[in-house]
Amino acid sequence: MGHRMKAAWLEDLKLSFREDLPVPAARPDEALIRVRLAGICSTDLELCRGYYPYRGIPGHEFVGEVVEADSAPIWVGRRVVGEINLACGNCAACRAGRPHHCEQRTVLGIIQKDGVFAEYVTLPVRNLWEVPASVTDELAVFSEPLAAALEIQEQVHVGPDLRVLVIGAGRLGQLAAQTLALTGCDLKVAVRNERARQLLDDCRITTIEVGEIRKGMADLVVEATGAPEGFELARTAVRPAGTIILKSTYAGNLALNLSAIVVDEITLLGSRCGPFGPALRLLEQQRVDPRALIDAHYSLAQVPAAFEHAGQRGVLKVLLSPEPIA
Amino acid sequence: MGHRMKAAWLEDLKLSFREDLPVPAARPDEALIRVRLAGICSTDLELCRGYYPYRGIPGHEFVGEVVEADSAPIWVGRRVVGEINLACGNCAACRAGRPHHCEQRTVLGIIQKDGVFAEYVTLPVRNLWEVPASVTDELAVFSEPLAAALEIQEQVHVGPDLRVLVIGAGRLGQLAAQTLALTGCDLKVAVRNERARQLLDDCRITTIEVGEIRKGMADLVVEATGAPEGFELARTAVRPAGTIILKSTYAGNLALNLSAIVVDEITLLGSRCGPFGPALRLLEQQRVDPRALIDAHYSLAQVPAAFEHAGQRGVLKVLLSPEPIA
Repeated sequence: MGHRMKAAWLEDLKLSFREDLPVPAARPDEALIRVRLAGICSTDLELCRGYYPYRGIPGHEFVGEVVEADSAPIWVGRRVVGEINLACGNCAACRAGRPHHCEQRTVLGIIQKDGVFAEYVTLPVRNLWEVPASVTDELAVFSEPLAAALEIQEQVHVGPDLRVLVIGAGRLGQLAAQTLALTGCDLKVAVRNERARQLLDDCRITTIEVGEIRKGMADLVVEATGAPEGFELARTAVRPAGTIILKSTYAGNLALNLSAIVVDEITLLGSRCGPFGPALRLLEQQRVDPRALIDAHYSLAQVPAAFEHAGQRGVLKVLLSPEPIA
Repeated sequence: MGHRMKAAWLEDLKLSFREDLPVPAARPDEALIRVRLAGICSTDLELCRGYYPYRGIPGHEFVGEVVEADSAPIWVGRRVVGEINLACGNCAACRAGRPHHCEQRTVLGIIQKDGVFAEYVTLPVRNLWEVPASVTDELAVFSEPLAAALEIQEQVHVGPDLRVLVIGAGRLGQLAAQTLALTGCDLKVAVRNERARQLLDDCRITTIEVGEIRKGMADLVVEATGAPEGFELARTAVRPAGTIILKSTYAGNLALNLSAIVVDEITLLGSRCGPFGPALRLLEQQRVDPRALIDAHYSLAQVPAAFEHAGQRGVLKVLLSPEPIA
């Protein structure tokens, strides 16, 4: 190719803006995508703190436009979002229909695959989802985290009479609250700050203070705090024979009283990536609207400042545009 | 009453045989039961090690004969086994149909309710199950642990094509293996000693050595080792998006890597008491036969020796008879 592009670069836990990175070459099954808008996620911040060793272009939340797709030219010109797990298609997990758990997978901007904080990115065509025309870039960029929120409903049956508590009203907690509210369940969200409370209020979702968490108050608890203290709160809140969904990833171990889990017959359920189809449907049908979570737009050239902003306490979504911000 | 009976007595972690304990008085909703045969369970051994504070008559696995039941005299003379959780019937858990998780419960021989290592015991009539005539005392005494094994199938769908690994072939592991084998699933049991292997061989159940446990080899893992090392083995064996059933209770905390549980979307599921109805059906239909697990019979007067025997490594079921052993 020889073409150069602008991108963020993470190496030795240092994030920099570069203008000399090669435009990635699409493999035969891949599309080349021009990134229109990208979002900074907690995982991106964790990568900068050494949660996983990663060297390359970070970023996995995006909306873009296909500019090349040799194997499927019909995609060229389409506005797309994309699944972040690149599966081999051949391993036991792939053959069993669980490509998100492919043993050989690379993960966009997270594991051995350059990500979306760049002018261009490549992804297998099979990972792409076309964005409906009515879904703006500012909505579509939330497809990936919204899919991750929907993974909860994919994994457990959230009936309309369930008492559900979401602990943590950060990026993921806000989205999970919006999707869970659609079930009609008896939903409460434990919040620590006024902005989080206000955002949920605006969605007519009930909030409580963390100090109001009571023993056995919920059938299902979603732990989305991103901190070890969250688990203890979840353990308090869940009723015997209830379920705790684990959404927080952080380094280090948790001390678990296994006997208490056995005696109370608690289910702990890890939850990661989810389905893009319903995420796009809910955005198109305007049943969820995450735009109030946006705190700031930065241009790619300002990526270190954007990360610093995104890492501040209480900040929710910070977006990055390859184009300079007007 | 004034009548006295023989019984085991646990106080300050010391187990003794006494002949001066009062025959318990049945409450209006209770039956008085003459114990015919009782079994020593790992929980009984743990109580002697201080797992829970308990002062009273231990024991919860039994078969007996109803001698008094003022509220339901039709039960008098019947041979019975009994559910061990005494529920209040009024709390949120009881009203939701989960009496095993009653917030006010006492538990036979475990929490504030004298148990079955005695000539007589009382239980609410609603806790009783009549034993079919063809089910001998030596079979019926396994009803409670067999019900606990069946709780696995009550909690998760064990389809016939599932790859299931049971880790630990002790008292509960053996029973779980027998009930899981009935599903037709691809079952393996990891064993540490020759007797455990032979017992499973006799049931035509596949065994492997603990050293043969491989990464991701099972969709469902039952952790029944009773030791913290069991969890690490289970974590190795379970495939991403698979389930670990936790059956081990022991004092102390486990160090859990929460992020790995999230990324691999593992389900951890605590499992305790189970359904007596199917346990009695399977015994009556001779689809399970736990009698090969019996290592010894002792009379109640020999209870300290019986506990010592039951606590030896590799020993499975030790039974206690209120009558002297011939």
